[in-house]
Amino acid sequence: MTKASVCTIGDEILIGQIVDTNSSHIARALNSLGIQVGKMVSIADDAVQIKGCLEAELQENNIVVCTGGLGPTKDDITKDTLARMSGATGWVESEIQKDIIRRILASRGLDALEINLRQALVPNTCDVIPNQLGTAPVMVFRFPEGRFGHPAVLYSLPGVPYEALGALPDVLEDIRQHFGLGAIVHRTMMTFGIAESALAKLIEPWESALPEDMHLAYLPNPVTGVRLRLSVYGADDSAPERISAQFALLKPVLGDYIYAMEDTCLEAVIGALLRGSGQTLSCAESCTGGMISHLITTVSGSSEYYLGSVTSYHPDVKAKVLGVDPAIIESDGIVSAAVAGAMARGVRALTGSTYSVATTGWADAYGDEREPAGTVWVGVDGPAGTRTARFNFRNDRKRNIERFAASALNELRKYIISVK
Amino acid sequence: MTKASVCTIGDEILIGQIVDTNSSHIARALNSLGIQVGKMVSIADDAVQIKGCLEAELQENNIVVCTGGLGPTKDDITKDTLARMSGATGWVESEIQKDIIRRILASRGLDALEINLRQALVPNTCDVIPNQLGTAPVMVFRFPEGRFGHPAVLYSLPGVPYEALGALPDVLEDIRQHFGLGAIVHRTMMTFGIAESALAKLIEPWESALPEDMHLAYLPNPVTGVRLRLSVYGADDSAPERISAQFALLKPVLGDYIYAMEDTCLEAVIGALLRGSGQTLSCAESCTGGMISHLITTVSGSSEYYLGSVTSYHPDVKAKVLGVDPAIIESDGIVSAAVAGAMARGVRALTGSTYSVATTGWADAYGDEREPAGTVWVGVDGPAGTRTARFNFRNDRKRNIERFAASALNELRKYIISVK
Repeated sequence: MTKASVCTIGDEILIGQIVDTNSSHIARALNSLGIQVGKMVSIADDAVQIKGCLEAELQENNIVVCTGGLGPTKDDITKDTLARMSGATGWVESEIQKDIIRRILASRGLDALEINLRQALVPNTCDVIPNQLGTAPVMVFRFPEGRFGHPAVLYSLPGVPYEALGALPDVLEDIRQHFGLGAIVHRTMMTFGIAESALAKLIEPWESALPEDMHLAYLPNPVTGVRLRLSVYGADDSAPERISAQFALLKPVLGDYIYAMEDTCLEAVIGALLRGSGQTLSCAESCTGGMISHLITTVSGSSEYYLGSVTSYHPDVKAKVLGVDPAIIESDGIVSAAVAGAMARGVRALTGSTYSVATTGWADAYGDEREPAGTVWVGVDGPAGTRTARFNFRNDRKRNIERFAASALNELRKYIISVK
Repeated sequence: MTKASVCTIGDEILIGQIVDTNSSHIARALNSLGIQVGKMVSIADDAVQIKGCLEAELQENNIVVCTGGLGPTKDDITKDTLARMSGATGWVESEIQKDIIRRILASRGLDALEINLRQALVPNTCDVIPNQLGTAPVMVFRFPEGRFGHPAVLYSLPGVPYEALGALPDVLEDIRQHFGLGAIVHRTMMTFGIAESALAKLIEPWESALPEDMHLAYLPNPVTGVRLRLSVYGADDSAPERISAQFALLKPVLGDYIYAMEDTCLEAVIGALLRGSGQTLSCAESCTGGMISHLITTVSGSSEYYLGSVTSYHPDVKAKVLGVDPAIIESDGIVSAAVAGAMARGVRALTGSTYSVATTGWADAYGDEREPAGTVWVGVDGPAGTRTARFNFRNDRKRNIERFAASALNELRKYIISVK
């Protein structure tokens, strides 16, 4: 069984200046190949530590992925250390990476200096996977079996997160080929509105009846819901169809909880529903403070259907800008179906959008006499009138806001589907 | 020198389902005591791995802080492992934690069951620091010098981030007392609008002239700017004043770049300027999609002065809701001083706020004929009329949005100060 370890190098991690997100992305990427990560280590930009850590991990694993410690201002500590570790006898220049370096610097209006081009130099003991998003290439060190007692490969990636992420597909392909992993087929379906434990109970009979070669993974997330991933390792051409057939069996079981038969998120599904339709969307937020708007705008092409939002943090703004009748706030309470509905209708009238979604809730640890802490009322307005729904969560403020926003997006999604 | 290591336990970390933020917080907390973290490790909920990892780290460090692996559904793997590692001969019940467990469950409308109260049981080899925010107490294992060759203490914290964070002050106090660290005094000042390297150059003479016992740390952050922290370890009563005197020397050097003489953030400084003043704030966002509104609303008590925002993602909404003259968009371009100013005036008129801040920019990798990618125009409106400012950053979309929002907040801050 292929074992892997992730090592993130950087003083900035150890002083808690940045949070290490690379490990998380790399682990998910390796998992998609059926490779488990047994340990994640973060260490300093220190030659002795780097050597010690990487060698220890290469002793225990077939694959070690490390990030960081590369770059002109880091004195190339990692690169020099890896050169020595791998017994390099010289340096090789990657022409491809040199071109990339020139291109990147030119796009910033700079000439490529010696100090920049030097990043294209690698030890003559590694393979290079070009880094299209930055100046430091990915280096692949393949250690012979005698060195660590088993075949072991070390992938050295840049530390900058979006460069490391950008390199992952090529790294995965290299692993797939060199470890003879064969074809791996995944299919993912998305659910929302049901907790992982309840979901597991519902699909237990189905899960027990899965074919031997299919592996199920539960991947819950407060904002995207619970993702179900079925994987076949060493797959043949029949795998995609077989997996789809298995997922189809879940439709009568899970019904409305399913929102997509691919790896996506609620805001992207809403985008797919609205794109090209000529229909538009607006939102009215309160305690969610801009989060729903933020999520909608993360979808590429959302400017086609998303008009904008009003965050009415103060009750007066609910009245003044959204036209919510203060008498309703008085009679029903600020967190209520009536106010959520009025906010949705208000922003829809203000922007002229086809659909609108609104939230009003208590995200903090306090509520009022009518509604307890953690309650949100969601309102959706559109061609079929106003609909409202209530949710209550018992998390901290930040998590409640995420869940309020996600619940609102799901109600909007269901509304749009019901109208089409 | 006191060495520390952080160990985060949890399968969910290794499968990349969650990002480990605990390590980052713990490192910063330890740093505030002058203790450096040499390594951060994430491992599985596995007794053998936990024992192996913790013992290895206790061999190399005086302090090991571990999080996770506690809780009724985790089969108490960590607790059992620690009991065996420490040679416990029995279990002790923490009455304080039992009370907390009952209180927490009652607040969720639940009775405390046996499975919940069992979390108050700890090995008879540890001290307990009660966890006020959750059910699992913090356990402190003090190993005698003979065990690892030096005094070593292991702090076992809950894995849930906000519980771990909540426990840190008490953990730090325990460390401070037991490691005889004496008083440690920090003072922090905040700067914005100058890069770390440029800042370092400006204050280099001052830094070289600092007294021997004062240590300077640069803590840059794209949203809060560069933080400067001066620390004195083993401080006496004169330390706070001495540090303040040193910082005062920087005022003529850094001038306008300084926005606070304490550890804070732009949105909190704005909050402090507006709280109790009766003055109010609104914002009009475009490409920042809700981020400015979100930042403003993270400040406790912001509902006192923050009225709300309009996110005008579509140009029509800039016209329809904010009253921006389409002719201006035509003549000056959508990303321009004129549009930023008009948006600020528009939302100010719409909400009736005292001040308003607006952004219009190109956060992605494309711009237009007038303004390149990464450009934002910020508009601020208020009693002294409209002011605009332009910034250009060359980061990815996400980072550009953060910097646009922060720059907007800083312009707003400077405006408010100039008017008072």
